[in-house]
Amino acid sequence: MTASSTDRPRQDPAPYARPGGFPVVGVVGGGQLARMMQPAATALGLRLRVLAEGPDVSAAQVITPAPIGAADDLEALVAFARECDAVTFDHEHVPGEGLRAMAALTSVQPGADALVHAQDKVVMRRALTELGVPCPAWAQVADRDAVEAFAASAGWPVVLKTPRGGYDGKGVLVLSGPEDEKWATAQAWLADWADRGGLLAEEHVPFTRELAALVARSPSGQAAAWPVVETVQRDGVCHEVTAPAPGLDPALAAELTDVALRIAGGLGVTGVLAVEVFEVERDTPDGPVRDVLVNELAMRPHNSGHWSIDGSVTSQFENHLRAVLDLPLGSTEPRAPWTVMVNVLGPKAIEERHEDLYRSYLHVMAHDPGVKVHLYGKEQRPGRKLGHVTVYGDDLDTVRARARHAAAFIAGEIDE
Amino acid sequence: MTASSTDRPRQDPAPYARPGGFPVVGVVGGGQLARMMQPAATALGLRLRVLAEGPDVSAAQVITPAPIGAADDLEALVAFARECDAVTFDHEHVPGEGLRAMAALTSVQPGADALVHAQDKVVMRRALTELGVPCPAWAQVADRDAVEAFAASAGWPVVLKTPRGGYDGKGVLVLSGPEDEKWATAQAWLADWADRGGLLAEEHVPFTRELAALVARSPSGQAAAWPVVETVQRDGVCHEVTAPAPGLDPALAAELTDVALRIAGGLGVTGVLAVEVFEVERDTPDGPVRDVLVNELAMRPHNSGHWSIDGSVTSQFENHLRAVLDLPLGSTEPRAPWTVMVNVLGPKAIEERHEDLYRSYLHVMAHDPGVKVHLYGKEQRPGRKLGHVTVYGDDLDTVRARARHAAAFIAGEIDE
Repeated sequence: MTASSTDRPRQDPAPYARPGGFPVVGVVGGGQLARMMQPAATALGLRLRVLAEGPDVSAAQVITPAPIGAADDLEALVAFARECDAVTFDHEHVPGEGLRAMAALTSVQPGADALVHAQDKVVMRRALTELGVPCPAWAQVADRDAVEAFAASAGWPVVLKTPRGGYDGKGVLVLSGPEDEKWATAQAWLADWADRGGLLAEEHVPFTRELAALVARSPSGQAAAWPVVETVQRDGVCHEVTAPAPGLDPALAAELTDVALRIAGGLGVTGVLAVEVFEVERDTPDGPVRDVLVNELAMRPHNSGHWSIDGSVTSQFENHLRAVLDLPLGSTEPRAPWTVMVNVLGPKAIEERHEDLYRSYLHVMAHDPGVKVHLYGKEQRPGRKLGHVTVYGDDLDTVRARARHAAAFIAGEIDE
Repeated sequence: MTASSTDRPRQDPAPYARPGGFPVVGVVGGGQLARMMQPAATALGLRLRVLAEGPDVSAAQVITPAPIGAADDLEALVAFARECDAVTFDHEHVPGEGLRAMAALTSVQPGADALVHAQDKVVMRRALTELGVPCPAWAQVADRDAVEAFAASAGWPVVLKTPRGGYDGKGVLVLSGPEDEKWATAQAWLADWADRGGLLAEEHVPFTRELAALVARSPSGQAAAWPVVETVQRDGVCHEVTAPAPGLDPALAAELTDVALRIAGGLGVTGVLAVEVFEVERDTPDGPVRDVLVNELAMRPHNSGHWSIDGSVTSQFENHLRAVLDLPLGSTEPRAPWTVMVNVLGPKAIEERHEDLYRSYLHVMAHDPGVKVHLYGKEQRPGRKLGHVTVYGDDLDTVRARARHAAAFIAGEIDE
């Protein structure tokens, strides 16, 4: 499950002018991903700082200093970069101009040339196709005629995506056919993107399940891969992750890991890369065969890797920081036969909300002394990722039931 | 290895007036123990603050806010307590007056009545003797005659200790006999402590090895115990910890765990209690028998429990915070058959020092991707605890060799 390779000799780290030589790593964006880098940074003696959207966002609660600035504020990015030995990201929303301005001042990981593939889905599809990575059929479509032409070859339904700005199911539309009432929205999107080359149209993949391959890659080319996991979405949001993916054909796991490492190397990714894929079943003359098609890329620690905090020798957050600093990567070995992570999502109805989220700990911790709780310091909103829980052990059914119970109780979905 | 009991029904937590009901925990003292509470607090969504000795002490680097104030500054303690839902400690040096002033304003864990047993070794010996806990022979001695009288019954050498203010081997003197040249120091100490009841004299115990029992106890009386560990000191400073203690008679381990739980309950300890003991071999008519004698107590996370960060389901830092807040305690199960922690101590000679401690990571991490490194952000000084490394696995010899190598390399004691 673990792969590692080195492309070129590692460089000595820059002679950081800090006490003991410990570098300052800046994270643009103050969400939970930045927040969860902090325990790893603390252990390694690294100094973190975060460019935060506001004074009390998730990461700003636990990382200091946390200057306030928007991810598209060039002046704020430049000022931030000047204070950091390396800059990395909580999200992919820093424009290329900002990335290049920071790169003139400090080490930016991943760089603009890699990150664009996680920012623009058309650029991503083009690059993956060039790398020979299996993808759903796709086309860039500028108008309705182009969508219908694509459907004529790929079949309905068609998945329409805005090239930029989508996340957690936003910016994605599934059109069932020419009569779908969602065409009104599709037409508005097409008009909006007409002068930027149009939208991304993709084949609707009838997948058997979703998987994710997580790898870390350093600037000097060392790479490490965690075991392939199974992910389950709820309303377009990651909800449950099982590591390793149960019943996955070892050959397919190896192929997927290889795909992720090829993407990381081919696109020059540094830090963590998450490759979200569809597992599909194709009929062949020899019977059904399982295969994978790449769905999305993320170039940062990813929800599909949160299990690694408690479930792997080195967490995705630690290896992300190591990679950003071009330090040798840590072991990605799992620490238990099964690890299940379940997200704590904000309750759909306000009346289901815990008046006092903290009180849920009394039940959850007494009920299961082995559950690992991670909350992100965020206000409760419907469907929002408020935190996650992780459970590990020898028996998958037990581990999964324990994790689901804890997450559901904290989220206010069950009473006992 | 794990024990758990509940004395009385748990109280609902105070209705903390924070977003989501998450409390603010204040830590008096900004050393590495406060620092290592931060990852656990971050995961649980707790807000930490630290009363720091200076602007850049170990914990103040990673915890915000970190107001500056001395542990004996009554005004600073009171101002700090007003901002916290609960207060706990990085060390035992807060005077009783300060503890009581804070306790009038907020929850202070452990309280003054418990903490005095970790502050004053004479008070500790008296209480343990009353609890029937096995201790070395001891006496309070006000002058040289009293020391010699004690030696006449307990035998030479005699260990003299200042009741308060000693740590890491400081405040301890071993007198080999009436001719020992250390008598000059002993006389000065005796004079210094004459009007405070005198020094503590203890039998010199020819121990086979040192062990430590670590337990956490909450205000409502729940307690949890980690496996008993073996500790190895170097120049009076903890250097190496093996969990669980190799070859320890299970009956003796159970007895020692029971002793630690009895001490925690008997003294009303809340949070983590570390009980450091001597394992001794006594000749009996049936042959040699191994037994334990309690050496020291610490009422806070302790160096003998650092292994639990990477080696146990719940670390001592997380359970300390849970106990301080009267939350149910987490599982203390070890995660691997063997876990070895080795301290990174500052090099004795300045010329052995790494010019750039951070550079040692290049070798250590490349050499062993499974080693867990924890550095505390401290300047290098001879013998100072700069950090620790932890390695876990199935084979004790391998695990120990890996941990020793990593710690020695970071400390500058070896070159490769």
